[in-house]
Amino acid sequence: MNQFTEIIEMIKSSEKIAVLVHENPDGDAAGSLIAMTEGLHLLGKEVKGYLENIPSNCGFLFPDERISLLEEYNGEAFDLCIVLDCGDIQRTGLGSKVYENSKKSVCMDHHMTNTGFANLNYIDAKASATGEIVFEFFEEFGLVINERMATAMYSAIISDTGRFKNSNTTQKTFEIASKLMAFPMDITKIAYHMFLETSLERTLFLGNLLSHLKLYLDGKVGVLVASEEEIKKYGISHSELDGMVEYARNIKGVEVGIFVKEMNGGFKVSLRSNGKVDVAEVAQKFNGGGHKFAAGCKFADVSADEVVRLLVSEFED
Amino acid sequence: MNQFTEIIEMIKSSEKIAVLVHENPDGDAAGSLIAMTEGLHLLGKEVKGYLENIPSNCGFLFPDERISLLEEYNGEAFDLCIVLDCGDIQRTGLGSKVYENSKKSVCMDHHMTNTGFANLNYIDAKASATGEIVFEFFEEFGLVINERMATAMYSAIISDTGRFKNSNTTQKTFEIASKLMAFPMDITKIAYHMFLETSLERTLFLGNLLSHLKLYLDGKVGVLVASEEEIKKYGISHSELDGMVEYARNIKGVEVGIFVKEMNGGFKVSLRSNGKVDVAEVAQKFNGGGHKFAAGCKFADVSADEVVRLLVSEFED
Repeated sequence: MNQFTEIIEMIKSSEKIAVLVHENPDGDAAGSLIAMTEGLHLLGKEVKGYLENIPSNCGFLFPDERISLLEEYNGEAFDLCIVLDCGDIQRTGLGSKVYENSKKSVCMDHHMTNTGFANLNYIDAKASATGEIVFEFFEEFGLVINERMATAMYSAIISDTGRFKNSNTTQKTFEIASKLMAFPMDITKIAYHMFLETSLERTLFLGNLLSHLKLYLDGKVGVLVASEEEIKKYGISHSELDGMVEYARNIKGVEVGIFVKEMNGGFKVSLRSNGKVDVAEVAQKFNGGGHKFAAGCKFADVSADEVVRLLVSEFED
Repeated sequence: MNQFTEIIEMIKSSEKIAVLVHENPDGDAAGSLIAMTEGLHLLGKEVKGYLENIPSNCGFLFPDERISLLEEYNGEAFDLCIVLDCGDIQRTGLGSKVYENSKKSVCMDHHMTNTGFANLNYIDAKASATGEIVFEFFEEFGLVINERMATAMYSAIISDTGRFKNSNTTQKTFEIASKLMAFPMDITKIAYHMFLETSLERTLFLGNLLSHLKLYLDGKVGVLVASEEEIKKYGISHSELDGMVEYARNIKGVEVGIFVKEMNGGFKVSLRSNGKVDVAEVAQKFNGGGHKFAAGCKFADVSADEVVRLLVSEFED
């Protein structure tokens, strides 16, 4: 792995720099991208950032005059391409064209599986977010950090740590948050946009969904079922259904939360464990996968009731 | 205001020490109480902590062999009484009896309105939580801090900062969180118990409530109404209704969230602003009060529909 010093030398010797993140970007990707492009601009570089789309909870961070959508890329060439938060070059999606039109490349990432695809690679799998690494990079060389960069890096960090809740949160995460607080950020507003703001449609849908919540196995398994008809009726997108499973898991006494979503005639299932039960094991029985605490699987040619029955009986064992 | 050094001297010269917090305790009160009693015990003191009841979201921190409910207080005398998180002695409720049976007193608090009622008072209105002050006290003298104390102080801090979201969160708050992370705390579990865990009854009630959410004034005002009949039907307590107003306020475009709760034949109203509108101004018109962003008022001898009509027409102006 390379050091920050090699990377800063490569940046200093470059004039035109592109910055990329992964497709289907999240808050860490968007925040890291904004901080890096802004920071390189303040360093006097001609810099352009690209992303596939603006994540729905990051609208408050945009527009950004130096960042465009990838579909607007006009084929121009760069001296250097900096790839953030991507474990391999395929993760950049359409961004690979920008990458190919760049003479040199740098990758900064926190995925343990990173392939080291760039000319210079700085990978810190202990960093909670790529936003942490971007902060450390600018801090290391005493480069200018402004309020906009601070807000973006803070957003990146709370996005990947679930606002200091996930197990990737470390002492250093809080240390960096403390340093970012030296800037006049509005952390209430950031938390609101990143985690709390929702749509009327999603709220009404949630109301209907929760009204039909069912518990099984002495209250140890909580089940929420959303039919395709309801999803259409409320007019909500599939991405707005992310996280609904947690309403089932967060009920006192529940050890496994299940969210069954009808999709294209079949069912997509999300499983969340509160720590005791290995949900990946059950997901694998239905040809799904995931981690011990968060897994998923799919069903076809069965009814919703049958999906629930099959899953509950697996957890019974 | 007194210094930590005067307080540590008073502690060192005392043998039997009582620790109190405010009535209707929250996470900061409970967490600070646990940390202080545990810390004084590790310092070799004979210490007893008292609280009115265990906050519903703090059950995971109890039982604690050195902490009892106030109703169990047997009238015993103490050399010193340490009062935490109370702006005046009335806030200790039944604890005032313990206070009266103590030779000397110390208060550590973060309320700007603190009256300085104790023999020694350490008040830091800039501290996000009393838990922050308790940490600084033990750190200042290099006293032993163990995992249990760290978990309790971290819980205290996330309780009063809304998990690093409220405007009382400072650089120092994050610095302390970073230092607490040196202990093997389970921050995922703490956040779950303090903020996410809920009851089946509350979840079903919430489902019904959200299904009937209404928007007014071009979507700028969101209204949720809970009838006494529904509250009884779902069997949920009034404390479980805390925070429901935020579901109305968190909808995109909503500037004011309103929660109308039928209670004893009348209505209790919670108002929350997203920052633009001063809701205290409207609450005052109906003889209520509060802050710019969070206020409340009561209505009697009117229907729920009339309450909503009156409030919405005020916000129209």
